[in-house]
Amino acid sequence: MIDRLCIFGVGLIGGSLAMGLRKAGLCQTIIGCSRSKNHLQRAQELGIIDDYSTNPAEAVKGADMVFLAVPLGAMHPILAQIKDHLAEQVIITDGGSAKQSVKEAAEAVFGSLPPRFILGHPIAGREKSGVEAAIDHLYQDRKIILTPVSDSDQTAIDKVTAMWEACGASVECLDVKVHDQILAATSHLPHILAYELVATLVDCEESDRVFNYAAGGFQDFTRIASSDPVMWRDICIENKTAVLNMIDLFENRLKNLKVMINHQDGDAIVEEFSLAKTARDKMLLSNRKHKDNNNKDNQ
Amino acid sequence: MIDRLCIFGVGLIGGSLAMGLRKAGLCQTIIGCSRSKNHLQRAQELGIIDDYSTNPAEAVKGADMVFLAVPLGAMHPILAQIKDHLAEQVIITDGGSAKQSVKEAAEAVFGSLPPRFILGHPIAGREKSGVEAAIDHLYQDRKIILTPVSDSDQTAIDKVTAMWEACGASVECLDVKVHDQILAATSHLPHILAYELVATLVDCEESDRVFNYAAGGFQDFTRIASSDPVMWRDICIENKTAVLNMIDLFENRLKNLKVMINHQDGDAIVEEFSLAKTARDKMLLSNRKHKDNNNKDNQ
Repeated sequence: MIDRLCIFGVGLIGGSLAMGLRKAGLCQTIIGCSRSKNHLQRAQELGIIDDYSTNPAEAVKGADMVFLAVPLGAMHPILAQIKDHLAEQVIITDGGSAKQSVKEAAEAVFGSLPPRFILGHPIAGREKSGVEAAIDHLYQDRKIILTPVSDSDQTAIDKVTAMWEACGASVECLDVKVHDQILAATSHLPHILAYELVATLVDCEESDRVFNYAAGGFQDFTRIASSDPVMWRDICIENKTAVLNMIDLFENRLKNLKVMINHQDGDAIVEEFSLAKTARDKMLLSNRKHKDNNNKDNQ
Repeated sequence: MIDRLCIFGVGLIGGSLAMGLRKAGLCQTIIGCSRSKNHLQRAQELGIIDDYSTNPAEAVKGADMVFLAVPLGAMHPILAQIKDHLAEQVIITDGGSAKQSVKEAAEAVFGSLPPRFILGHPIAGREKSGVEAAIDHLYQDRKIILTPVSDSDQTAIDKVTAMWEACGASVECLDVKVHDQILAATSHLPHILAYELVATLVDCEESDRVFNYAAGGFQDFTRIASSDPVMWRDICIENKTAVLNMIDLFENRLKNLKVMINHQDGDAIVEEFSLAKTARDKMLLSNRKHKDNNNKDNQ
């Protein structure tokens, strides 16, 4: 049970956690904090938070759990503001998409990562953002990755795990660096490709007509290019090494494909595309199996 | 009214045209032709075609409309086989994703593009393929692009237009080269990026674990990487110039972004991502308006 949860950034991620916990009855009081009083008022009207403050130091007072759901670039300033106002036994966790970056922000503020600061990342989202998009089942059947370090407090890990499990999620632990590599591959690179595809089309020769002929496949493919540019700026910068590494790998792959196309090497092209198709079809199959097993477990 | 329609390739595209026309009552008899007797039998069982032949020369006998829904690489051999067996007034059209390529195949076989060969391309598709995936409303509210040339027969253009409109589609005409450029941008490049993204992940450091953590966004983004590798090999080769040009543009864009990320130039990154987000959001808005207007027209 959480007595007093303080959520920084009551948007889709923070708001959905609040709603999920409320539904599960796991939380007494939820306090919201953000720079926008309007957003906080709206969140309170919607019953997502009980109270709010735009002052971080005030917001965390008496909280036994703090959840940071703000863009990566905002982690350090918030931590600096709350540092001297935290309850002694408080547990801190976050939803940042790159873990090394949050770890370093915490180290810069606290000297070292506090044992009860459990780095985390819910692998969940929606096309829409903001508190109006928050739903109580966003984390149902989704994965939450925690990246505890060697001296992380086991009770704190357990409490953060229980918080997410109450929302229907399954929790897995990964090494900080491995998390950042995996997310660069499965999330950061795809977002960059989607943004850059659309940007390329804006500037291409038939640009004025191109978007008229974009079919459903294109709209699916570019859905993530409607994501928040500021959030994704932060991710690119804060997970720079892994992101640039993935872009390099992708560039090499694309360069090789260009040679195949240029040489009209049909067999090599089919082999390349089949490699991708097989991997994707296998992923879908394994996700489906995983889901079926979960459903069986719940019966 | 079409007396006898001969469809080459009774899969998603060809089968859905047959079903749409049947529903509209625009076609007397539909003949299917493909290399696989099993597929043709299945199509007949499903009531999609009335009869079939695996012999192209026989299949086109007496047909007043021929629709080619085969991979681009199969256009030339089929045209060569049917050339001497076509009825005098036959209209030919196709569904190929690159028009210059089909035009050249026809020129190679017939000496020049026959005036009643109306090059076409339905901008429609589904994730699934094959005759089992065919549906009678695939073309409802979708765009069909025709690319007639200067000596195309107007009656033939009108008849092909009427055929597609009977399936609920709207027909627009474009220049061959413009079509190929636009499709390279909105369809061919996205497919290539999706294939190459998945292929990159197969070969990256954390490959064995990467696919376990791919969320819904990744699945949407890579949906088109489950497309048929042979069809996409043909498109890459047959629309080589436009495809390579688009890849070059994309590569340059990505290279510039890498510099921004490397220099941690946050403002430039936000500008780049916002350019994409704005263009995509505008596209969605304009598509929605277009749909609303169509709905109004139908009331």
